[in-house]
Amino acid sequence: MSEIQKVVPKKVVLAYSGGLDTSVILKWLQVTYGCEVVTFTADLGQGEELEPARAKAKLLGIPDENVFIDDLREEFVRDFVFPMMRANARYEGDYLLGTSIARPLISKRLIEIAHETGADAIAHGATGKGNDQVRFELSAYALDPSIKVIAPWREWDLTSRTALIAWAEQHQVPVPKDKRGESPFSTDANLLHTSSEGKVLEDPWEETPDYVYSRTVDPEQAPDTPEYITIDFERGDGVALNGEAMSPASLLTALNELGRKHGIGRLDLVENRFVGMKSRGMYETPGGEIYARAHRGIEQITLDRGAAHLKDELMPKYAELIYNGFWFAPEREMLQAAIDHSQSRVNGTVRLKLYKGMASVVGRKSPDSLYSERHVTFEDDAGAYDQKDAAGFIKLNALRLRLLAQRDRG
Amino acid sequence: MSEIQKVVPKKVVLAYSGGLDTSVILKWLQVTYGCEVVTFTADLGQGEELEPARAKAKLLGIPDENVFIDDLREEFVRDFVFPMMRANARYEGDYLLGTSIARPLISKRLIEIAHETGADAIAHGATGKGNDQVRFELSAYALDPSIKVIAPWREWDLTSRTALIAWAEQHQVPVPKDKRGESPFSTDANLLHTSSEGKVLEDPWEETPDYVYSRTVDPEQAPDTPEYITIDFERGDGVALNGEAMSPASLLTALNELGRKHGIGRLDLVENRFVGMKSRGMYETPGGEIYARAHRGIEQITLDRGAAHLKDELMPKYAELIYNGFWFAPEREMLQAAIDHSQSRVNGTVRLKLYKGMASVVGRKSPDSLYSERHVTFEDDAGAYDQKDAAGFIKLNALRLRLLAQRDRG
Amino acid sequence: MSEIQKVVPKKVVLAYSGGLDTSVILKWLQVTYGCEVVTFTADLGQGEELEPARAKAKLLGIPDENVFIDDLREEFVRDFVFPMMRANARYEGDYLLGTSIARPLISKRLIEIAHETGADAIAHGATGKGNDQVRFELSAYALDPSIKVIAPWREWDLTSRTALIAWAEQHQVPVPKDKRGESPFSTDANLLHTSSEGKVLEDPWEETPDYVYSRTVDPEQAPDTPEYITIDFERGDGVALNGEAMSPASLLTALNELGRKHGIGRLDLVENRFVGMKSRGMYETPGGEIYARAHRGIEQITLDRGAAHLKDELMPKYAELIYNGFWFAPEREMLQAAIDHSQSRVNGTVRLKLYKGMASVVGRKSPDSLYSERHVTFEDDAGAYDQKDAAGFIKLNALRLRLLAQRDRG
Amino acid sequence: MSEIQKVVPKKVVLAYSGGLDTSVILKWLQVTYGCEVVTFTADLGQGEELEPARAKAKLLGIPDENVFIDDLREEFVRDFVFPMMRANARYEGDYLLGTSIARPLISKRLIEIAHETGADAIAHGATGKGNDQVRFELSAYALDPSIKVIAPWREWDLTSRTALIAWAEQHQVPVPKDKRGESPFSTDANLLHTSSEGKVLEDPWEETPDYVYSRTVDPEQAPDTPEYITIDFERGDGVALNGEAMSPASLLTALNELGRKHGIGRLDLVENRFVGMKSRGMYETPGGEIYARAHRGIEQITLDRGAAHLKDELMPKYAELIYNGFWFAPEREMLQAAIDHSQSRVNGTVRLKLYKGMASVVGRKSPDSLYSERHVTFEDDAGAYDQKDAAGFIKLNALRLRLLAQRDRG
Repeated sequence: MSEIQKVVPKKVVLAYSGGLDTSVILKWLQVTYGCEVVTFTADLGQGEELEPARAKAKLLGIPDENVFIDDLREEFVRDFVFPMMRANARYEGDYLLGTSIARPLISKRLIEIAHETGADAIAHGATGKGNDQVRFELSAYALDPSIKVIAPWREWDLTSRTALIAWAEQHQVPVPKDKRGESPFSTDANLLHTSSEGKVLEDPWEETPDYVYSRTVDPEQAPDTPEYITIDFERGDGVALNGEAMSPASLLTALNELGRKHGIGRLDLVENRFVGMKSRGMYETPGGEIYARAHRGIEQITLDRGAAHLKDELMPKYAELIYNGFWFAPEREMLQAAIDHSQSRVNGTVRLKLYKGMASVVGRKSPDSLYSERHVTFEDDAGAYDQKDAAGFIKLNALRLRLLAQRDRG
Repeated sequence: MSEIQKVVPKKVVLAYSGGLDTSVILKWLQVTYGCEVVTFTADLGQGEELEPARAKAKLLGIPDENVFIDDLREEFVRDFVFPMMRANARYEGDYLLGTSIARPLISKRLIEIAHETGADAIAHGATGKGNDQVRFELSAYALDPSIKVIAPWREWDLTSRTALIAWAEQHQVPVPKDKRGESPFSTDANLLHTSSEGKVLEDPWEETPDYVYSRTVDPEQAPDTPEYITIDFERGDGVALNGEAMSPASLLTALNELGRKHGIGRLDLVENRFVGMKSRGMYETPGGEIYARAHRGIEQITLDRGAAHLKDELMPKYAELIYNGFWFAPEREMLQAAIDHSQSRVNGTVRLKLYKGMASVVGRKSPDSLYSERHVTFEDDAGAYDQKDAAGFIKLNALRLRLLAQRDRG
Repeated sequence: MSEIQKVVPKKVVLAYSGGLDTSVILKWLQVTYGCEVVTFTADLGQGEELEPARAKAKLLGIPDENVFIDDLREEFVRDFVFPMMRANARYEGDYLLGTSIARPLISKRLIEIAHETGADAIAHGATGKGNDQVRFELSAYALDPSIKVIAPWREWDLTSRTALIAWAEQHQVPVPKDKRGESPFSTDANLLHTSSEGKVLEDPWEETPDYVYSRTVDPEQAPDTPEYITIDFERGDGVALNGEAMSPASLLTALNELGRKHGIGRLDLVENRFVGMKSRGMYETPGGEIYARAHRGIEQITLDRGAAHLKDELMPKYAELIYNGFWFAPEREMLQAAIDHSQSRVNGTVRLKLYKGMASVVGRKSPDSLYSERHVTFEDDAGAYDQKDAAGFIKLNALRLRLLAQRDRG
Repeated sequence: MSEIQKVVPKKVVLAYSGGLDTSVILKWLQVTYGCEVVTFTADLGQGEELEPARAKAKLLGIPDENVFIDDLREEFVRDFVFPMMRANARYEGDYLLGTSIARPLISKRLIEIAHETGADAIAHGATGKGNDQVRFELSAYALDPSIKVIAPWREWDLTSRTALIAWAEQHQVPVPKDKRGESPFSTDANLLHTSSEGKVLEDPWEETPDYVYSRTVDPEQAPDTPEYITIDFERGDGVALNGEAMSPASLLTALNELGRKHGIGRLDLVENRFVGMKSRGMYETPGGEIYARAHRGIEQITLDRGAAHLKDELMPKYAELIYNGFWFAPEREMLQAAIDHSQSRVNGTVRLKLYKGMASVVGRKSPDSLYSERHVTFEDDAGAYDQKDAAGFIKLNALRLRLLAQRDRG
């Protein structure tokens, strides 16, 4: 019966970081399935050298042509982060989806490499308790319905750190000395954010210890003087910092530097996983937090109310789709079509104040502004607006409520 | 024809602040309609003495029995602010609706007083360009469909400050010296917030000048040391600060003091008015901002995902309804029924760190917590969660995407 | 004061049917404003000769170059009806929006003609109680923000039929004999539907009299034998009837004939107007009802669940926007972008049975079908689907409910 | 590893119909687990004798005290069908959820009986491909988080009819002669509907054969004369037919008889299952279809627009929750709270015409009607409505569109 599920891969593309865990997986795939392994290591801006991953892969017997290392930073920001930011997406009110948005891109590249190399399977190092397995796999299946997916953490018996290390040693996987003990928490990093969870973070009543943070200075240690910056937007995407044109990844990198310095973008959250339990995470999204606030700022003057409110109503579902791994689902694409339609005139400049953990919009201007001082002024408006119109407006908005009141309160 | 609209009131209840504008309105009602005027002055926590309003009303000839002064602070927070906070309502992503939520209560009292005194009309001092006229009037009509509403700013010819003051002097309305010049901006205040708009704030590119702020210290002047507090919740409402039980208004008052001290709750926003134009406002919601973050914090561990996500999806519409003045509309009440249903186990304690403009949740605990360390742990979970279940979960979530991919990418 | 509102047009484009009411309006515009009048008469498939309108306009002194008569049937169906049908739009659960969807097209042409002829205003014959005034005017303002709009029914004193006819006779507007009495109800017709309301229909407890129906035979008089038809769809739009390719308007015309014969598409509805009151209408949408059911039928096999459910969730708002007159609003365009994105593979053939008032989908097939007999079969599915996957799927969907039950029912 | 999942029940409550399949399951549970079996057979109005189930259970060795037979018809209609009908729920535009709504009630009783009898598990006869397994199990887990669930169709090897019958004979389970062959389709029935699917229905292009229908006459064979009926509603629920007060189940039973006679409520649908594939079903919901139309009819005159539109917007999600098995989830309960809040004045009488497959609302009246002839009339309305108000209403609704047009089309 269960043969149906039994995946017997011939050639597997592994999402490979070069770290201990994915090195064990690499070897485990070889040992368990006797299959050929292709490694894929992506630079998503996580801030680590990638060449060591190549060396380690080769050490584990992967031939040169099976080692793929790609710099995906521009694609990541341009085609994933920015489209998501157009939607002002925040999961459960706060989370800027830094991990969620990177997974579909990794899967996309895994599938491309599988097709290039004739592999029939992919593998990843996400556990069976988290969201990442879902994101990797839904994306993979949506791009190649016949791909096989190997998730060793759901398959093997290595359920403790000790067992993992014993297995590694038994199978000649090098174990760095600093990996022998347990890490006090688990992290994921890319150009948009670093997330930390587990172990010391598991009690949601305990404040996150300072050593968990890696991308931002403590706001108390941040400069005592605010810094002002401007971001320019074109069609809803950031294009310049302080007047200097930048590519998407360059802009986010520069904003990360500013955010780090001023302690911006820390978030302590208990969130609801797609697989059904709650987890507590700590996120640092320094540049993303600044960017997200700036984007809302430019929309304030360039987006019509109807468009803006529709976007706000659609956002929770859009964010949920990304969180749950449905980036390559038609309903996400439909929402994106609606959102992108709204951004054609989202052009202009936002001015922000950065200070001890806060990024505050303090000014916005645009050649496409819909803000009309003439209409809003308390002064003489030269006939732009006839206050008497408001009487009829209110009367007809009230009509149904009055008919109701006649019935219910009469 | 237009006789239909012509309201000829016999006795009018006026929302009366005691200030120059509503004093002119008081006199104008007497002069224009020859009608009896009843004044109503509410203490909503705006921080002003109310007895001077009584004196001024009497000076303008209002007899004692026609002067109503009520302390509505507890009702305001308990029946309006807290229910709204249960929804995590923010208009256009940010605005905590401080002015919007006060209007229906004022209208409710105006109508009650009209019924007590046999008045056939109410009057308010909101202009024809803003949202407040709509909020006052929709609420009034929803509570008494046959009430007449007088909105002098839409009726009279006093279109400049000079004209208003001239009219006042001509009709023996006392004009305080400091009211002769124009105020550099316009404000509204209550226990939840102070809003400022107009004049110096009209250019959305210009940073708000420091003198506009009245409820919070500049974050740069706030204490250099963070302060930690706890708020206890029962059934979704705050009941204690630092372990000390407090009434709704007392709790919000105490949080305002904390927020003021730490520079929390400043917001510079360009928003979309219901009447159709954009306006720029500056809001200070010190205690409300702390409270709103704390409420989300306690929901994180006590609210089921399905309930939480439904709330997030409904929130933009709920906030829009309040902003637009539809507090007493059946659709707002329906949403409230749904929201309140979700709050029955929203109990527990949130710990926050207040520091230079920020209120950050750093811990939450609850006897009704849904957070399960056993399920989420990276360690041995004693069978709480079978990672193999995730395989089937993903497979069936992926099925439609695979069928789609077979068609579209095959 | 009210000068602000006073529109003094120089040249007005009038939506002109050639009937008595719009002929009176034509004359009234000339008499009241001394302005030049341009008439515009559209063929939207209402089934009336248009040339008499030309003759009447000329009789009333309109020179040839100011008389515009256009056949808009193809544009109407292609650019308005079909896009709306892609959304499966029904207002308040039932109404296929036959009148609502025609108004923006008329306004579009009015504005185009205004620009061609140098007119500064448009005029229409809709009353101040209905939705059509709103639809005409919102569309006009959205296309030309400086256009003036004249709505004589809101302006003049002709509040009874007698007054109107007296005014007509006094001003040499010919009054056909059959228009001297009052019509027992009011109608609007175009290629999509005929609506009737007012007078004999005003009591919602009384059944609609048979003489009100004009587009469909009584189902009881319809053929006793069902008729089967097929409709082919491409990218969500109908392209052929019974295998014969047809233009949009031709297809709808042919479906109208079929619907008429079988008594399909009658609807008795009490609906909520945008201006605040309820009204009772009787609609006949013979071809539209068939088409709408067919469209849902083809979507059933070609649309992914995620796309289909998102469409269903968005539909009520989309329908409301069209009903309220917001066709040319950005939020309608955003929703259309999402909907259109979903239709790229909505291709195939639907088979329907027409019988005594009913149009029932009885079969659908498509080269782009997502229906997989292999997956759904009760028979051996050759490993297409592993039933064991369902166990994990259910377990993880249940997890949050179990954690909740442990807390709430434990 | 997989021990985690291995359920070893001691005492199982089985949803038992008395038919061959569940008799085999009964025996299989005894044989496989050596466990005690409790049978539960519900009368949900499926129209079958229940006592034979008792006899069969006893024949299979179940002692009297372990045989539960309950008449749940009133509870089913009152607490499940009617609340759902208040929402006007239809899944994917059409399906009245007849099977979906029965499952949570069966699970509720299974759990209650488990608690009464000290059983630690429940079992059901739903397959691993359908929605019913999900509905049974989510409901069970939501009511008892520690219950074990046995779904034999996902467990055993009996993958063909032949294998099942062979197993039955081998284990002394009586096999009725008419069950030896394969049924040409599969059905589910209760008081609300009968559904049929599978086999002869699997090709969605083929029209459903006439012999599949069991609850309704062919519309072509239905009476040639329409029949008129009235249904009275109180607080959103039906309470009388043709003026005669009836209990919920009695009313639905009587409507079923009417619907059967007139061929009402047949639906041929291709729908999207929660488990990911599309399936084709044929539904007969004779009384439910009449009831659903009547409920919308009474809402038309008693429900405010804001409430009605909010209900329409929430409905697709509500229907999806029921379809997917989330009846006992907090988000369904929240939506129910909102919906129920809207029904407090949904009182009155609806008149319907039943004719050859159609149930058409032709009249509605209510002491709580919001319909105002005075407001809607084309005649003199005695000042109820000032048409001039519409000018201001339109102007302010247009303002944002005009500002937009000035920017975009200027």
